[in-house]
Amino acid sequence: MQEIIKPLIQKNNTKIIFAVLDGLGGFPVDGKTELETAATPHMDALARISACGLHTPVGPGITPGSGPGHLALFGYDPVACQIGRGVLEALGLGMEVRKTDITVRCNYATIRDGVIVDRRAGRIPTAQSKKVTAKLQKAIAKIDNVHVLIAPGMEHRFAVRFRFPEKLPHDAADIPDTDPQREGLAPLPPKARSKNAERVVGILHQFLAQAADVLKNEEKANFLLMRGFSGMPDIPMFGEAYGLKALAIATYPMYRGLARLIDMEAPIIEGGLSDQLLFLKKNWENYDFFFLHVKKIDSYGEDGNFAEKTARIEEFDAVLPEILGMNPDVLVITGDHSTPAAMKGHSWHPVPVLIKGPYVYGGFCNSFTERQCHGGELGVFPSIHIMPIALANALRLKKFGA
Amino acid sequence: MQEIIKPLIQKNNTKIIFAVLDGLGGFPVDGKTELETAATPHMDALARISACGLHTPVGPGITPGSGPGHLALFGYDPVACQIGRGVLEALGLGMEVRKTDITVRCNYATIRDGVIVDRRAGRIPTAQSKKVTAKLQKAIAKIDNVHVLIAPGMEHRFAVRFRFPEKLPHDAADIPDTDPQREGLAPLPPKARSKNAERVVGILHQFLAQAADVLKNEEKANFLLMRGFSGMPDIPMFGEAYGLKALAIATYPMYRGLARLIDMEAPIIEGGLSDQLLFLKKNWENYDFFFLHVKKIDSYGEDGNFAEKTARIEEFDAVLPEILGMNPDVLVITGDHSTPAAMKGHSWHPVPVLIKGPYVYGGFCNSFTERQCHGGELGVFPSIHIMPIALANALRLKKFGA
Repeated sequence: MQEIIKPLIQKNNTKIIFAVLDGLGGFPVDGKTELETAATPHMDALARISACGLHTPVGPGITPGSGPGHLALFGYDPVACQIGRGVLEALGLGMEVRKTDITVRCNYATIRDGVIVDRRAGRIPTAQSKKVTAKLQKAIAKIDNVHVLIAPGMEHRFAVRFRFPEKLPHDAADIPDTDPQREGLAPLPPKARSKNAERVVGILHQFLAQAADVLKNEEKANFLLMRGFSGMPDIPMFGEAYGLKALAIATYPMYRGLARLIDMEAPIIEGGLSDQLLFLKKNWENYDFFFLHVKKIDSYGEDGNFAEKTARIEEFDAVLPEILGMNPDVLVITGDHSTPAAMKGHSWHPVPVLIKGPYVYGGFCNSFTERQCHGGELGVFPSIHIMPIALANALRLKKFGA
Repeated sequence: MQEIIKPLIQKNNTKIIFAVLDGLGGFPVDGKTELETAATPHMDALARISACGLHTPVGPGITPGSGPGHLALFGYDPVACQIGRGVLEALGLGMEVRKTDITVRCNYATIRDGVIVDRRAGRIPTAQSKKVTAKLQKAIAKIDNVHVLIAPGMEHRFAVRFRFPEKLPHDAADIPDTDPQREGLAPLPPKARSKNAERVVGILHQFLAQAADVLKNEEKANFLLMRGFSGMPDIPMFGEAYGLKALAIATYPMYRGLARLIDMEAPIIEGGLSDQLLFLKKNWENYDFFFLHVKKIDSYGEDGNFAEKTARIEEFDAVLPEILGMNPDVLVITGDHSTPAAMKGHSWHPVPVLIKGPYVYGGFCNSFTERQCHGGELGVFPSIHIMPIALANALRLKKFGA
């Protein structure tokens, strides 16, 4: 799809707001989904004049993670473009990642006599984790000719980036997790699953030995477990693919990471929805495309909290007039996947989407809900179609063929 | 798709009429599209008993040109089968094109002191252009062992076919336009972008030098600009692919050209819709498949003339009883793309289609409009699915697998 589109791209001054309400889609409890329960007068009004539908990020029946969910929204085939968790985590923690890097997510863990007794080191406080990480970084800056960068995350989580002097082959990160996923077992030693991963595994053995020495006297964080080894994927950059200058407005590291992966600007911002909107307004003149990520809807879905998920949808609806006040040429409102409170997690259910633009028909839906969107003019369709429809409505695509 | 179908083809005596109302799909003005505004009692009655839907020729958000639009209708993947403008133009002007030919669209232009002062030579009258072209053809019939055929088009337009003695490699036409697209610049010399194009470019240099000499004393048409170098694409022929003897009934060169490209018979016919129907009746016994191309609906869409586009849709509706009177086994009514008067050009909006056949459900739509077709039994689907559905209704496809 991106290959077809690339030669058709034309630039103009239109602006696109792409609001991702994380985990938006739901499932009925007592007959109504979260969206059907929420009072959303502004989204309902928009749905009546917008192109609506339900999109499937990966495929029917497939529950997407946040990575594939977002990539599909941005027009990337989520099966062809699989992004490692290590890269996402590293980018999310503000690390710059290059094609010469291998990244990995880590947990501090507690071991006794070589056996894991707590995979999360008692969820040590973030402040404590920061101190330990600084110590680790100070002791291990370089192994052979490989630079090591370590960044603390929340509680027991952190990420490590190994920067090699040369570009790495595509399967250099083909290394299973060292986390056995259960307490009472020993951590697994790093192992190469491909010839090209052997060089990386050599560095990992040295890293683990040095880290174990640095951590040995910590009470809880006296070891570390590694998951999601990954290198930078070889995918087109968003700006290049679509001719758009894009800004990500996301308060959670993971989503900034996703944005940076495709070279969107994603400055660190904190706070709630109102802070995000302030940031949107401040940067309005300097970008063409605004990826506005709204996290809390998903979080309450994951918690199984139907009422709070509903309330967070209403919270977004309440600020919608402010967003419309910016007069974007195209406004997309959708989610990266469904997170039904009834299922306490992501699900495979197609995700409602609404595209407001100057060249949509409208008139198909009465409100913005899963069931109404099913009858919308977009029908049920793969998520990667959203970007071309948004670009078309912004008149940013030329004709294909003569 | 064609590969799956080919072994399933069976012949019988059924007849299929495939009416392409060029640029049929529209966009609402004051709440109603052209089709919604037009009084089309016959199409509406048909829609109630037909399989209806909306088709996307290339993909969601992608605005198709006429070439890809038609190829998709005929079941050819328009991305895999990209046809050069030169070939389309040559075929449209009645030239036969083979795999040993390179074709190109040309404009007569006016140059002074080596600089283009008019890219269209004052849009010289067609009669005048014919005379100049005859002179050119007389002077240049052969260059080395390459036969040169030159055909006049409308006003300043013409096409040239270079027939080489041998089959040309696929990239032999990889040559940029010599038309710099702006006045005040010099024409660009032909340049080979691939090794295989060098042989062609050698001939082009000689052609241009000889042509410049022939034209030098013309007042306006004293030079020529070349665009859209292309060779014959390597695609299956329609008759072979589907086991159908096909007749194109098209009054415009471009659409006859498209038909000839896939080896449909496409005799030159002139006049309006009634002449086309007369021609259809006269040839009824001799063909299985009739591609009836109706141009004016698109033309008025391109002009932004909502009322006239609507009137031309009504004009077609008025002759529909005559078409039904032929008792085709399958009748398809659709467009090759949308051309909303509101947008004065092609657009990406899915195109309404109606398939009347003995084995469609019907009962989904009240009238033949974009919004009604949305709820039709075909839904929104890729255009390349139309041919198999038409063939199936004509009982021309055997079972797949045992």
